[in-house]
Amino acid sequence: MKLLTLRTPNGTQAVRQDGDTLIEIDGYASVGELLQNPDWKSVAAAATGASHAYDGADLAAVVPAPSKIICVGHNYRNHIKEMGREVPQYPTLFAKYAESLIGPNDDLALPPESDAVDWEAELAVIIGKPGRRITEADAADHIAGYAVLNDVSMRDHQFRTIQWLQGKTWENSTPFGPALVTSDEFTAGPLMTSAVDGDIMQSTPTGDVVFTPEFLVHYISTMITLNPGDVIATGTPGGVGHAREPKVYLAEGQTLVTTIEGLGTLTNKVIKEV
Amino acid sequence: MKLLTLRTPNGTQAVRQDGDTLIEIDGYASVGELLQNPDWKSVAAAATGASHAYDGADLAAVVPAPSKIICVGHNYRNHIKEMGREVPQYPTLFAKYAESLIGPNDDLALPPESDAVDWEAELAVIIGKPGRRITEADAADHIAGYAVLNDVSMRDHQFRTIQWLQGKTWENSTPFGPALVTSDEFTAGPLMTSAVDGDIMQSTPTGDVVFTPEFLVHYISTMITLNPGDVIATGTPGGVGHAREPKVYLAEGQTLVTTIEGLGTLTNKVIKEV
Repeated sequence: MKLLTLRTPNGTQAVRQDGDTLIEIDGYASVGELLQNPDWKSVAAAATGASHAYDGADLAAVVPAPSKIICVGHNYRNHIKEMGREVPQYPTLFAKYAESLIGPNDDLALPPESDAVDWEAELAVIIGKPGRRITEADAADHIAGYAVLNDVSMRDHQFRTIQWLQGKTWENSTPFGPALVTSDEFTAGPLMTSAVDGDIMQSTPTGDVVFTPEFLVHYISTMITLNPGDVIATGTPGGVGHAREPKVYLAEGQTLVTTIEGLGTLTNKVIKEV
Repeated sequence: MKLLTLRTPNGTQAVRQDGDTLIEIDGYASVGELLQNPDWKSVAAAATGASHAYDGADLAAVVPAPSKIICVGHNYRNHIKEMGREVPQYPTLFAKYAESLIGPNDDLALPPESDAVDWEAELAVIIGKPGRRITEADAADHIAGYAVLNDVSMRDHQFRTIQWLQGKTWENSTPFGPALVTSDEFTAGPLMTSAVDGDIMQSTPTGDVVFTPEFLVHYISTMITLNPGDVIATGTPGGVGHAREPKVYLAEGQTLVTTIEGLGTLTNKVIKEV
């Protein structure tokens, strides 16, 4: 099942995708709200609301306002190598705030304060059931599904200090979607790519990680309760612009395309913030 | 004016403190909810709801669920020195999630997974008016007020990787309160102390910082919108347990007391998590 958050003239609306059609899930303004209902899966499956064409639909970030977005650094071996790091014993965790999210087809605006805006294609895990100290064996039961996220990073700000937050949470900088694909229909493994104006920049299977989604749910929930709608961005593979020689960053007029096979595509035109 | 969040048998309730009495601000379940109303100040001042005695009141974290808690590292010169760092050009920023907050008099439970739980007394800034790219001159207008926060840190987890988040956001680890003291009644400067079983561990004026509250509002809002109820924890001074020789951490049965003159006191008994 694919669940999305649609923008309508009356606000956002959770919808189920059936082929080329989006069906409204009445009473839920977003996939994030839907996931607060423990019966979200049967509610979504049974929905028979108004329908919309998928083509041309104006999509919001699939979960527009997660209470937590937890990002993982240094998870793909080829990115660990390009950043000059060792394979880690523990996941590297940092945060992003909800204001940074944008829809899967929204424009990506370069802020005037940064000259070093870079891409980071990532597999996002979306939590569907609350839990603390979840075992790795139980973790799958807490994962509602998966989506595509691009952890677009302002490298100049990221490396101003030893903590990365200020390069990772700029307003309206993180495309997220297009859909939550439920975990019965997707398992980490398929290819993830990012491309700028058609040039492939990153291309790595989502299974090539040090820490799996299930391990990350276990590890993070040891410290803090994971709640429905919370997002874990599981790290980016090699090929980021900052690790190239010479370094490459996004420029006005380009299009950033991020795809995970089986999950979908984010297509974001790069503009100058006005 | 002092605003607090009171726990009652019917859930939490925003209250105004008048001397020894707490007056309910009807219609607002917390100070966080109250701040969503642009007229929060006049609403709070005019409230005439049910009253409670301050003595023995069961207080929640003053803003129980901020959408953002942004923490500042390396802001007090004596802490920068004890951690072996240089005076920074830019603020070091990292995150904490709302699930980490506890009330000003709640027990502080040591999780079984950490053997290195440390104190960090901090002045917390609470936002009262939304804004992006706020100038330093306008910043005061966006600050609702101030409170005391202890950024209790699991040092073993904090230093597992180069990003601190996992030492900073353990469930129920961050005392916050007792009150929001409105900015017309408090200016950064007065003495902040932390004490363990009566032994003073930290004692530094809140004016001894590299980056002022107004500068931090300006700096952070350059990247992301600051919203009402958002919290900036402005950093800790020298005297943390991790920088002592030998290192000292919190132990079961101790009491951690954190005070800022003019703002109030957090009193947290240290227990073992059960």
